[in-house]
Amino acid sequence: MSIVVVGSMAFDTVKTPYGEVENALGGAATYFALAASYFGKVRVVAVVGDDFADEHLELLRRHGVETDGIEHAAGPSFRWGGEYSWNLNERTTLFTELNVFENFAPKLPPEFRQSPFVFLANIDPELQMSVLEQVDSPELVACDTMNFWIEGKPDQLRDLLRDIDVLVINDDEARELAGSYNLVEVAATIREMGPTALIVKRGEHGVLAFFGDEMFHAPGYPLEAVADPTGAGDSFAGGFFGYLAKHSEHGPAAMRRAVVAGSVLASFCVERFSVEGIVDLDQGQIARRYRDFQLLTDFGAL
Amino acid sequence: MSIVVVGSMAFDTVKTPYGEVENALGGAATYFALAASYFGKVRVVAVVGDDFADEHLELLRRHGVETDGIEHAAGPSFRWGGEYSWNLNERTTLFTELNVFENFAPKLPPEFRQSPFVFLANIDPELQMSVLEQVDSPELVACDTMNFWIEGKPDQLRDLLRDIDVLVINDDEARELAGSYNLVEVAATIREMGPTALIVKRGEHGVLAFFGDEMFHAPGYPLEAVADPTGAGDSFAGGFFGYLAKHSEHGPAAMRRAVVAGSVLASFCVERFSVEGIVDLDQGQIARRYRDFQLLTDFGAL
Repeated sequence: MSIVVVGSMAFDTVKTPYGEVENALGGAATYFALAASYFGKVRVVAVVGDDFADEHLELLRRHGVETDGIEHAAGPSFRWGGEYSWNLNERTTLFTELNVFENFAPKLPPEFRQSPFVFLANIDPELQMSVLEQVDSPELVACDTMNFWIEGKPDQLRDLLRDIDVLVINDDEARELAGSYNLVEVAATIREMGPTALIVKRGEHGVLAFFGDEMFHAPGYPLEAVADPTGAGDSFAGGFFGYLAKHSEHGPAAMRRAVVAGSVLASFCVERFSVEGIVDLDQGQIARRYRDFQLLTDFGAL
Repeated sequence: MSIVVVGSMAFDTVKTPYGEVENALGGAATYFALAASYFGKVRVVAVVGDDFADEHLELLRRHGVETDGIEHAAGPSFRWGGEYSWNLNERTTLFTELNVFENFAPKLPPEFRQSPFVFLANIDPELQMSVLEQVDSPELVACDTMNFWIEGKPDQLRDLLRDIDVLVINDDEARELAGSYNLVEVAATIREMGPTALIVKRGEHGVLAFFGDEMFHAPGYPLEAVADPTGAGDSFAGGFFGYLAKHSEHGPAAMRRAVVAGSVLASFCVERFSVEGIVDLDQGQIARRYRDFQLLTDFGAL
C-alpha cells in the first residue's frame, strides 16, 4: 500500500572525523522516501527551492518515488550544517537556514489523498496536522518530532498526538515529552497521549519499541566503519514504515520485523555520506543485512 | 563443572536517587559467586577482614558456594563508597579503602586446583596471574580488568591476556585497552592479544560479544525500576560463566545463551540494592526472565 510522507528536503553540509560534504542531498523526507522505496510506493510532500537540481528529483523517481507533491518555490532550499564529535555520538548544528521552508504550506495532490499510510516527519506540528487533515481515511499514521516543537508548540503537538498511531522519536526527546527518564515509564506516559505504539530511536544503541503489551529491542548493527550518522533516524523510519505498508499490517509480528527492516536501512545509511548509503541498493543486500541482524541476535532456549 | 573465582569481597556504601545503603555486602567475587551459583559449584578465593560476619559466609554457603578459599585477615575488609547520577549512568567513587586487600596473596586450597573453569575478577593482573598459575590445567579461563590496571600495569596485563580465553570488560575499558573507539576494531585488536572471545559490557545498553567469526548482542532488559547498578557487571559475568561451566561447553551456541543468562542475572541485580536482587532466586524466576529476553528480541524472517 502506498505511503504519503511530508517532511524536509534539504542540502546538508556535514563534517565527521571521516570526511565532509557540502550542500549534499538531505532532509528527513528524502531519507525516508529513499529508504521506504525498497518496500513499495512512496509519495513525497515537500518544498524545494530553485537550486534543487533535476538530478535529485530524478534520483527519487528512479526509486519509484512520486514527486508530484514536491512544490518548487523561488529562493534557496532548506540548508543545514553540522559537525560530529570524534566518536560520532554528539553533533553540533553550525547553521539552519529555513529558506523556502519558512512559508511551506503543504498541499496534497488529489491522488495522494487516498494513501492509507501516512508519515509525518519532523516538522511544525501544525503543518503535520494540516497534512493529516488532507488525507481521506488513513489506515496507519505515524510521526516524528523533536525538542524544538516539544518546547515551542506543546499544545499543538498534544493535539496532533491524539490522532497518531505510531510515534517514532529519539530517546532524549521521548524523555523530554514524557517528563521522565525510565523508558518503560516514558512509554506508558506517551501512549496515554494517543499513540498506540512508541518506537524509541537510541542512535548506535538501536531501537526499543512498545506496542500492544509487548516490548521489542533491535540493536544498532556493529559496523566496521561509520562515515556519517546524518539521516539514520529518517532512514530507519522509512524502512520501518515501508515494511508495514508493504505487508499492510501492523500487528506485533509485523512491528518486530518492521523495526529490523528499519534498522537495516539505518545501518546502510551511516556507512556513507548523505544519501549515498541508501541509493541503488538491491533486494539481496537488504535481505543479507536483515539476516545479519538475525545472526547478531538469535539465541536458543535456556 | 566447578568454577574457581578470585576477586574482591567488600562492604559498599552506595547512594542512588532511589535510596542508599551503608556497609552492605559487595565486591566482584561476591556478586559473581552468587550469580554463578544458580548454575553449579563455585569456589571463591578472596580475603576478608575481621569485620566480616558469619551471616555473609552463611549466605554464600546457602547458595552452595565453597568458602574454604576465603582468607580471614586482621583488620577491616575492603570498603568502597560511591554515588550515582540522577539517571544512574554515571558514578562517582567517594572512597576506596583497600584495607586487608592491600596485602592479599591469593592461595588456592588443594581441592580448588582441579577446577576446570577459572574466572579472574578485576584485581591486580599479577594476582590474577598467580591464581592462574595455581590451577592445574584449566579448560576455560576468563578475566575482567579496569582502567586502573590498563594504565598502571600494562605489561603485566598483556602477559596475563596471552593466557586468557575470554575477556569480559566494560566498553570504555575495552576501547582504552585497544586504543580505538569502534568496537568491531577494538575486538580485532584485543583478540590479537590472546583472548579468543571478547565480551563487551555496555551498562544499560547490554552486551556485545565476539567469538569465532560471530558477533552477538543482548540488550539490557528494560526494567520499570532500577534501584542500584552496583554489581551488575559482576553478576553478568557470574551468570555468563556459570552457564558455560554448567554445560561444559563454549562453542558459539553456548556463548550466545551464556550471554543471555548473564544478562538475566544482571537484570535481577540492579532491581535491588547490594546483593539483594540475586539472593534466593528460584530457577523458575531465572527461566521466566530468560524467556522475557526471548520475547524482547525475537523476530521472524523478512
